[in-house]
Amino acid sequence: MVGGGQLARMTHEAGIPLGIKFKLLSDTPQDSAAQVAGEVVIGDYRDLDTLRAFARGCDVITFDHEHVPTEHLRALEADGIPVRPGPDALVHAQDKGVMRAKLDEIGAPSPRHRIVADAADAVAFAEEGDGFPIILKTVRGGYDGKGVWFVRTPEDARDPFLAGVPVLAEEKVDFVRELAANIVRSPHGQAVAYPVVESRQVDGVCDTVIAPAPDLDEELAGRAQELALRIAKELGVVGHLAVELFQTTDGRILVNELAMRPHNSGHWTQDGAITSQFANHVRAVLDLPLGDPRPRARWTVMCNVLGGDYPDMYQGYLHCMARDPQLKIHMYGKDVKPGRKVGHVNTYGDDLDEVLERARHAADYLRGTIVE
Amino acid sequence: MVGGGQLARMTHEAGIPLGIKFKLLSDTPQDSAAQVAGEVVIGDYRDLDTLRAFARGCDVITFDHEHVPTEHLRALEADGIPVRPGPDALVHAQDKGVMRAKLDEIGAPSPRHRIVADAADAVAFAEEGDGFPIILKTVRGGYDGKGVWFVRTPEDARDPFLAGVPVLAEEKVDFVRELAANIVRSPHGQAVAYPVVESRQVDGVCDTVIAPAPDLDEELAGRAQELALRIAKELGVVGHLAVELFQTTDGRILVNELAMRPHNSGHWTQDGAITSQFANHVRAVLDLPLGDPRPRARWTVMCNVLGGDYPDMYQGYLHCMARDPQLKIHMYGKDVKPGRKVGHVNTYGDDLDEVLERARHAADYLRGTIVE
Repeated sequence: MVGGGQLARMTHEAGIPLGIKFKLLSDTPQDSAAQVAGEVVIGDYRDLDTLRAFARGCDVITFDHEHVPTEHLRALEADGIPVRPGPDALVHAQDKGVMRAKLDEIGAPSPRHRIVADAADAVAFAEEGDGFPIILKTVRGGYDGKGVWFVRTPEDARDPFLAGVPVLAEEKVDFVRELAANIVRSPHGQAVAYPVVESRQVDGVCDTVIAPAPDLDEELAGRAQELALRIAKELGVVGHLAVELFQTTDGRILVNELAMRPHNSGHWTQDGAITSQFANHVRAVLDLPLGDPRPRARWTVMCNVLGGDYPDMYQGYLHCMARDPQLKIHMYGKDVKPGRKVGHVNTYGDDLDEVLERARHAADYLRGTIVE
Repeated sequence: MVGGGQLARMTHEAGIPLGIKFKLLSDTPQDSAAQVAGEVVIGDYRDLDTLRAFARGCDVITFDHEHVPTEHLRALEADGIPVRPGPDALVHAQDKGVMRAKLDEIGAPSPRHRIVADAADAVAFAEEGDGFPIILKTVRGGYDGKGVWFVRTPEDARDPFLAGVPVLAEEKVDFVRELAANIVRSPHGQAVAYPVVESRQVDGVCDTVIAPAPDLDEELAGRAQELALRIAKELGVVGHLAVELFQTTDGRILVNELAMRPHNSGHWTQDGAITSQFANHVRAVLDLPLGDPRPRARWTVMCNVLGGDYPDMYQGYLHCMARDPQLKIHMYGKDVKPGRKVGHVNTYGDDLDEVLERARHAADYLRGTIVE
C-alpha cells in the first residue's frame, strides 16, 4: 500500500486476519500506518525509482491517497505489477475536470459545471446560471476543503487561479444534506453496496456520519446505490469507491466528489457492518470474494476526533471508556494539531438520538471542547 | 508483549485502534505476531538480560504465553516495570500444583488430585478413588494436550515421570461437556465476564467453541462466572483469565485449567462480542476502563483451522468467502504443519445448527479435509 496515513493503518489492521503480507511505502517512520505495520519502506511516492523498487515482488499495489502521478501508475503496470484501482479509473478521483466530463458522458447527475479560464470566465459562469455564489475548485490536489473556494463576488474569484492549476466552476447547490453511497468492486466485477449514509461537514471537514441516512426515501437510497455501482463499473474502479452526494431541496441527488480508497464516510463500517470497508477493500484488491456489507446495528454513528489544545488525547480515554463501555475509539497515532483529524469514534444502538449523543460526547471530550 | 504467537498478533490488531505503541519480544522475525507488528525485538525471553533490555522504556509488560520464568518476572518488577498479570498471579497458570493448592485454599471446586512421587504413588492415588483411569500431568510446561497422560494401567503411569518434573495426578472426571468462563480484570479491580461458552476438544486440542454454551442452566452459568471472577480476585489476576471447566454428569462444575492471557475459548469475541477479549486484555493491562463483554449475536461459533496437507491455506479463501459472505477468517501467518493450529473462523447468526455448519465447513475446507 502506498501512503502511510490512517487509511493505510486501518487497512493493515483489517488485513491482519487474512494472513496476508502487507508492505507499506510511507513518507516517514512516524506516519500513522508506519507505526504499526511490519514491513515498511520509507520513501517518496512521487519518485518513480522509489515506487518501482517498492513495488518489486508485490502481488498488487493499492493506495491510501490519490496523489501518485498517473504516469507512475502506468509505469508500474508496464512493469507487470497490478495496480488497483488502475490509473484509468484513479484519474477520475485525481482530476475533478476529468471526473465531471466522465460523469456527463455516462449521464450521472452533477451540479452545473465547467472548466473556467480565469476570474472573468468564472464571473461569466455565474451569470450563465443564477449568479453568485459559485464554487471554484482546483482540478487536482484538494482535500478536506482545501483547494475549494466558496465565491460570493467577482473579487473572490481571483485566488483560485493563483496556483496555475486548471479551475473547475460549479453551481452552489441548494442541498438539504450530504449523503455518501459507498460500494466495493472487485476486478472480475463483483460489487457490494453499503447502506447510504448521511455525512455532516463542519468547515468543509467531515464531522459526523449516520448509517443509514435517517428518513431517506427508499427509492432515493436505491437510486444512490445504483448510481455508485454504475459509476464504479463505467470507470473500471477496483476497491472501495465513495460517491459523495448532495441531496437537493427538489429531491434530486448530484455527485459531489469521488474517492477510490477507503473513505471517512465508511469508517462506521468497522463496528457497524458485517464486513468493514477496509476488509472489503483488501478483498477487492486481492480479487477475493467480497464480504457482506449489511449493517449489524439499527444505527451506527461515527464522529471524527479533531486535534484540540491537549497534546495527549490519551487522557480522555478514562472518562470516555468509563462513561460508555460500548464506545469504539479509533486513534491514528498522529501528533495532535488543532483541527487535524487524529481519530474517530463509532457508536451503535437502537435509538438514534442516544447513539448520536454518545458519539458526540466522546469526540468532544477527546478533543477537549467539553470537560465533563 | 512477550511472545510472538497468534495471541500477540491478535492483541496487536486489537491495540491499533487505541493508538498505543506496541512493542514485541519475539523468538524469530517469522513468528506470527512479528510479521505484522511495528516494533519487534528478536530475542529469547528465557534470557534475563534480553528481557530486561526489551522492557526498558515500556510502561507495562504482558504476555502471549505463560513460559517466562517467575524469577525473571520478579526481576522486571524490581526494575520498576509493571508486569500484568504479575508473577504472584501468573504462577498459578504456570504450575498446576500451585494452582490446585490455591483453588483448594479458596474453596474452588477441582477434580480429586494430589502431587504423586512416582508410578507406584500414582497407582496408590488411583486406588484411593475409583481406580484407573486417572490423569497425570507435569506441573509445568504442558499445553494443547502435551504434558498430559490418560493413564489406564500401572504400566502407563511410568512415562510422565521420565522428564523429572513434578507430576500431578487427577481423577478422570465424568463430564458431559467442557465449558469456559472467561473474564477480564483490571489492576484496580474492575472486572467483566463474558458469557460462558462450550468448548469441544478433539485429541486434546480445542476444536469448536459455541457462545453462549447451548442449553446451559442459567444458575449454573452464573455460578461459573462468579467462580471465574472470584478466582481472578483471589489470585490477583490482571488481564484476561480463562477458566476451563468440566460440567459433570451430576451437575457440578470443576476447574480444569487456568490461562492468564487471551485464550482460544475467547476467540469468538472478535466477531461475536461488543468488546473482544484482545481489546479488553489491552485495556486491563493499561488500567483503562473495560469494554462491554456482551454478545452481539444470538449465537457465535468458532472453529479452529488446523494445518492439513495443503501448504497454502490461501487457496481455500475463494470457495469459503464466496460460499459464506458473513464468514470471518482469522489466519495467523504460520507455516502449515499437519495438526498445527494455523487459524480459526468465526460465524454468527440466529440458528445454531446453521451457524455451526458454516463454521465447520469453512474450517474443514481450509484444512483440506473436504473439497466441496
